[in-house]
Amino acid sequence: MTGPDPAVAAVRSAVRRVLLALPRDTTVFAACSGGPDSLALAGALAFEAPRRGRRAGGVTVDHGLQDGSAERARAVAGVMADLGLDPALVRTVRVAGRGGPEAAARTARYTALDTVVSDHAPAAVLLGHTLDDQAETVLLGLARGSGARSLAGMPPRAGAYLRPFLDLDRETVRRACLCMDLSPWEDPHNHDPRFARSRVRHDALPALEKTLGPGIARALARTAGMLRSDADTLDGLAADLRCRAGDDPAEGLSVAELEAAPSALRTRVLHRAALDAGCPAGDLNARHVRELDRLVTEWRGQSHIDLPGGLRGRRRDGRITIGR
Amino acid sequence: MTGPDPAVAAVRSAVRRVLLALPRDTTVFAACSGGPDSLALAGALAFEAPRRGRRAGGVTVDHGLQDGSAERARAVAGVMADLGLDPALVRTVRVAGRGGPEAAARTARYTALDTVVSDHAPAAVLLGHTLDDQAETVLLGLARGSGARSLAGMPPRAGAYLRPFLDLDRETVRRACLCMDLSPWEDPHNHDPRFARSRVRHDALPALEKTLGPGIARALARTAGMLRSDADTLDGLAADLRCRAGDDPAEGLSVAELEAAPSALRTRVLHRAALDAGCPAGDLNARHVRELDRLVTEWRGQSHIDLPGGLRGRRRDGRITIGR
Repeated sequence: MTGPDPAVAAVRSAVRRVLLALPRDTTVFAACSGGPDSLALAGALAFEAPRRGRRAGGVTVDHGLQDGSAERARAVAGVMADLGLDPALVRTVRVAGRGGPEAAARTARYTALDTVVSDHAPAAVLLGHTLDDQAETVLLGLARGSGARSLAGMPPRAGAYLRPFLDLDRETVRRACLCMDLSPWEDPHNHDPRFARSRVRHDALPALEKTLGPGIARALARTAGMLRSDADTLDGLAADLRCRAGDDPAEGLSVAELEAAPSALRTRVLHRAALDAGCPAGDLNARHVRELDRLVTEWRGQSHIDLPGGLRGRRRDGRITIGR
Repeated sequence: MTGPDPAVAAVRSAVRRVLLALPRDTTVFAACSGGPDSLALAGALAFEAPRRGRRAGGVTVDHGLQDGSAERARAVAGVMADLGLDPALVRTVRVAGRGGPEAAARTARYTALDTVVSDHAPAAVLLGHTLDDQAETVLLGLARGSGARSLAGMPPRAGAYLRPFLDLDRETVRRACLCMDLSPWEDPHNHDPRFARSRVRHDALPALEKTLGPGIARALARTAGMLRSDADTLDGLAADLRCRAGDDPAEGLSVAELEAAPSALRTRVLHRAALDAGCPAGDLNARHVRELDRLVTEWRGQSHIDLPGGLRGRRRDGRITIGR
C-alpha cells in the first residue's frame, strides 16, 4: 500500500496541526472560493476532521461581482457537501464602500465570515493563503513603505481565523488539489492587471525571482514572520509605555516618560495617541509623527504643530496633548 | 543673480547639514570613486567646507581589480585636488578573502578608509550613497530573508562614516554632478550582471516600479528608516535583557528572565549568545534560534539541541548554556 502523494500529505498534515491545537468542541470551517488553494483546504479538512473527532463545515462567499457568481457559489457549496463538510454554507454579500474594489470585497467577505463564526460558536475559519500569498502581501506592504506591521504580512492565527498553509508554496497546494481530484475554478480577477495583487503575482515576483534567484517568495515569507514578532513585541512595549505616560487624552502624555523611552516606542505611542484623538488614519503619516516627536525631543518652545483633521499637537507643563 | 541649479543646491545643503553637526576640528573626507554620486559629494564638500570653517580632504581607493585602475585613481585624486580638497589621497588595497568579490572589495575599502580616519584623527568620511542605493540594499536584504536589521539598510551615520545623500535620489545627485561640470567615470561593474547589486539596479527595481508604481525606491528607503529605528530599539532592549538574564557564558542565561520577556527580545538574546559561544555566523540560522527558544518555552526535559560548529544548547537548573 502506498501513501498519498507528498503534496496531499503536506496539506493534510498542515490542517491536522491546526485542528489538534483547537478545542475539541470547535466547529472548523474551510473558507472556500472554489479556487485551487481553498479547494485543497476543504479537501484536507474533510479528510482530517472526522479522523481527529472534529466537526467540520465549509463556507463560500458570493460577492455578486461577476455574472453567474450565485450559481458558482452553489456549485462550490455542492462540492464541499460532497466532500462531507456539513454545514456547507453560501453567504451572499454586497460589496460597497471605501478603499478600492479589493479592499471593499475583503471587508464584505470578513464581515460575512465573522457572522458564520458567531452563528456556530465556538467556531474557527481556516483560510487557504499560501507562502506565495504571504510574499505578495509583503511586497504590497513594501510598496506602501509603511513599516514593520505592514511588512509582517498575514498572521498564522488572528482570532477565529487560521492559515494552515502559510508555510506551503502554491505549487504544492495546487498539486494537492489536483491529486485529490478536485476541479478548481480560476478567478479571472487573479489575472486582472487592474488589481495590484495580480500585478505583483504575475510581474513583480517573477522579476525578483529572475533577478535575485529562486527562493525569493520563501525569503519574503520568512521576513514577514520575523517582522511580525518584532512588531508584536514593539506594540506590546509601546502599550506599556502609554500606560506609564498617561492615557487620559485630556491630561496628555508625560514628556519625561516619553523622553526616557527608545524612539521606536515613543513614535508608536504618539502615532496611536494621534489616531485616538481623531486624526484620520489615511492622512496621518510618518512625517506628522516625527513632528510630534520633535515636541518631545527637540522642543524649542514652539506653541503647536498641525496635524491632519484640523488637530494640533501641543506641549505644555511637561505633557503632550493632541486636540483642537 | 540666479542661484545654483536646484540639484546643486540640494547636494550642498545635504553636505552642509552634516558638516554643521560635526565638531569644528574634524577633518572631513569625501570618499570618491570618480563615479557621479561620489564626485558630486566631493564637489559639494569642496564648496561647503571653507564656507563653514571646516578642513576637507578627499580619498579614493584603488582596488586594483581592473586594468588602469592606478591611473584612474591618480586622476580622481587630481580632480579632488583641483576642487581644493587637501589632502587628496589615493589608498591602494589588495582585494582578497571570503564572501564573494563584492564583499571582499567592500571589506578592503573600509579597512583603507578606517586607516585614513585614524591617520587624520579627528576625522570623518562622507559616503555618496543615495536613496536609490538604499532601496537596492533593502531589496538585497529581502532576498536574504534575514529580518529587520538586514532590511534596515545603511545608517545615515555609523561611527566616523556619514551618508549625507541618503534622502536624495540618484537622478538629483547625478544632475548636480553634471551641473558642477564634473566628469564622472562609470564603473563597468555597475552594469555587470554577475553582481547582485547590478541586477537589482537594472532589473529588479525597474520591474517593481513598473508593477507597483513610481516611488518604490522612496518607499523602500522609508521602510529602511523605520525598520532601523525598530531594530535599534529591539537590540537595545535585548542587551538589557541579556544583562538581567546573566551574561557569563559559563553560568548561562536565566530561563525565568527569558520566559518573562517578549519573543523578539528572547530570540535576539539567544542568537547573540550562540554567536558569542562560537557558532559560525554564516551557519547559524533562524531555525537554530527557534530550537534554542524551545528550550525556554516548550521544554520537555530534552537533554540538548545541536547547533552549528559542534556546539550544543542545554537547559539545566533553570539556565540555558551553549557549549561543547
